[in-house]
Formats: sequence, structure tokens, C-alpha cells
Amino acid sequence: MTTDAAHTAAKRLPERTIERLSEYRRMLLECLGQGRTHIYSHELASMHGITAVQVRRDLMLIGFSSDTKKGYDVEVLIDFIGTILDSPAGLNVGIIGMGNLAQAVTHYFNGKRSKLRITAAFDIDPEKVGRTVAGVPCYHMDTFTETAHKHDIRVIILTSPSSVAAGMVEPITQAGVRGVLNFTSTPLNFPADIYVEDYDIITLLEKVAYFSKGGPLPSVTAGE
Amino acid sequence: MTTDAAHTAAKRLPERTIERLSEYRRMLLECLGQGRTHIYSHELASMHGITAVQVRRDLMLIGFSSDTKKGYDVEVLIDFIGTILDSPAGLNVGIIGMGNLAQAVTHYFNGKRSKLRITAAFDIDPEKVGRTVAGVPCYHMDTFTETAHKHDIRVIILTSPSSVAAGMVEPITQAGVRGVLNFTSTPLNFPADIYVEDYDIITLLEKVAYFSKGGPLPSVTAGE
Repeated sequence: MTTDAAHTAAKRLPERTIERLSEYRRMLLECLGQGRTHIYSHELASMHGITAVQVRRDLMLIGFSSDTKKGYDVEVLIDFIGTILDSPAGLNVGIIGMGNLAQAVTHYFNGKRSKLRITAAFDIDPEKVGRTVAGVPCYHMDTFTETAHKHDIRVIILTSPSSVAAGMVEPITQAGVRGVLNFTSTPLNFPADIYVEDYDIITLLEKVAYFSKGGPLPSVTAGE
Repeated sequence: MTTDAAHTAAKRLPERTIERLSEYRRMLLECLGQGRTHIYSHELASMHGITAVQVRRDLMLIGFSSDTKKGYDVEVLIDFIGTILDSPAGLNVGIIGMGNLAQAVTHYFNGKRSKLRITAAFDIDPEKVGRTVAGVPCYHMDTFTETAHKHDIRVIILTSPSSVAAGMVEPITQAGVRGVLNFTSTPLNFPADIYVEDYDIITLLEKVAYFSKGGPLPSVTAGE
């Protein structure tokens, strides 16, 4: 099972499947907490507003099959999804810019059961550098490359002011970081082998506002 | 021009076009701040890592054309995008759950030049209810429906604990809200005429972590 999973992971699953696996696991953990041992694909589907076929297709993609009479074994499926999503030894995350948003994300994330650990923060504010902020040691941005190496940081959450975000591309790339969650409003040009996810609050709120102005909602637009 | 824009808006633009219009406007405002009066489509495109053809197609969709010799007039284009995205009288936004994340979002948003205003917050914490938190008056969740009506709240930012999120669907629907930005990890079943955008930090960070584990990055997957 582990070999299959590792093999499947090496093939790189579609982005939407990865998002759904993360969501399934969260839901399964909740079910486990409520003492449930088994769950049917149509139950998982209805919690997410998708079809049972989609759930079964996602789980087939990762090589997981189930006893259809009793449904999926909740604990086994949680562990199996873990072999796909998680790094066995865990993965260290750094956060640049330790303002309100970063502190909220850190509290939010380090409170959960997860193989992801926010282990270092970076800022230039003398009130923060050298201290522990939201439970994480905060270093000066000048020491980024060596500190990121020392902590084996693989993923960066970028919450610096948008005005200085472009200047972060080089140190992040130099430090051997593999993925960036970009909370700033600035699109950043990283080398193609670094995975970047933009997470722009203003754009999403403006989008919700636009579609809230009344009239028909958008239908799914092919190719967009 | 206004009539064209209003007409185009009534047709409902694709979601990705709306996102890009929001991003173009932010970039144009920055250019304006630097004293630039004109910009070419290829310049706007390179800032966003897309093609000039895509920029021109988006602006054609909203009925905007330009003097190609000098490029687009920055100020005129900012105002034109505003006729598409904004409600002329502005739009009131409420926020449910006034924890760290909500306070960060409120600071972040109310600091910007925008037609969107976060005008009311809702919580059940006696430390917050009846006070002004992050510059916004905080009301008890029990008074949600009447307070939302009084403030003419059209959009809700939902940051309550995930465990109570499902219970928010009915009051939000009853209050005549048109759009929801859902920060909780719970998928919510709203009526089809309410626009919902899920904004799940854990899922996105797990996705970045997965694609940061090494190996080739995903190619664009058709139909996903």
C-alpha cells in the first residue's frame, strides 16, 4: 500500500484532487472524533457538495479501494491520504512578515494536528526580531538564507507588505525553498521549479462583491 | 461608456476575468501613484505573468478600447474597471467571528481605497460584543438578522470556528446576504442564488507542501 501510494505521488496528482484529499481528510478526522469507524463515498460527497463518483475517482487515483458493504474504513483512509499528502518526517514551513495576518495563520495552523510545522518567522521590526512571536522564533530577514537552511525550511508563507514582496524572490530562491504560499497582492516571478500559490484576499472579496450585485450567477465557464 | 459597462456587467463576466480585473486595477493604482499616465497591454501582462492577448481580451470583454500608440490611459482604465467591479454607492460587508484572522482581514481591508466597507462584526464573546474591535462595531450574533438588515450588509466574511459554521447558513440566508467569503474549513450548503467563495488556508498550504516534495510540477490539467 505504501509503495503504491509513493508511486502514485511520484506521478503528480491533479491540483484539484490534492485539494479534495486535504478536505476529505479533515472531514474524516472529524468523523473519527465523533466515534465513526466507516463512511460511504456518497456521505463524503454530500459533505463536500460533489458526487460520489468524484470521490471514488479521487480515491481510485491514489490507489485506494474499499469494502463497499461497510464503506471506507475512516482510520485507514486517513492514514492512506497521509502517505500521499505528507512528508514522512514532516515538513518545515517559514513565514516572512510577522504582522497580524501571519500571527493569525500561525495560531490557526500550529494548533492543528499536522505534519506541517511553522518553525521560523522572519521580519525586520526590532520589536519582533530575536523574540518568540505567536510561538515561533522570529529572525531578522538579513539572516534569511542561512536560517532557512539551518531549519530545513521547504515552504514559505509570504505575508510581507506588497511593496517589498518582489525583493523576496531572490532570497527565497537562494535558500532552496520548494513552495510559496503568497499572501501579498503582488504577482511574483519565481523559477519554474518552485510551486507558487497566490492567495489574494482583496481579489477574492472583490469577486464575491461583484457576483453579489444581483442578477444570475455565473455558469461554469469552460476553458477559464 | 457607463451604459456599456453596466450592460456588460449584467451579462456576468467569467470568474477568472473578474479576478484579473481586480488585479489589473491594483497594478494600475500603483502605476498612478508612481506618476505614470499610460501603460501598454504587454506591460500589464508581464506584471501578471500572462500574455498581452489575454489582457486585451479581458478589456474587450468589458467594452474598453485604447489608443494603441500611447497605450491605455491609466486613470481612465481605473475608473472604467470601477464601473464593472464596484457598486456606485459602495457595498457593506459584515464579518462573523472577530478573532485574530478577522481582525487581520479588517485592518488589511479597511486600510485600502475601496468601495467595500467592513461596517459590522458579529461574535458571542462578551469581551468583544458591544465594543469596537479593529475599528468596527461588534454585535452579538443573536442580533444578526436585524443588524445585518439595518446596516444593509450584502456580503459576509465568515471566520467563525469551523465547528459552528454550519449553523450560520440559516441566519445569513435569512438576512438577505448575496455573497459569502468562507474562511472556515467547513463546506457550506447555501441556496444557489448566494455566491460562495471558499478560502481554506489549510488546504492551500497542504497543496503547496505536496507540490514542494520534489519531482516535476503539475502541468495544466484540462477539465479539472
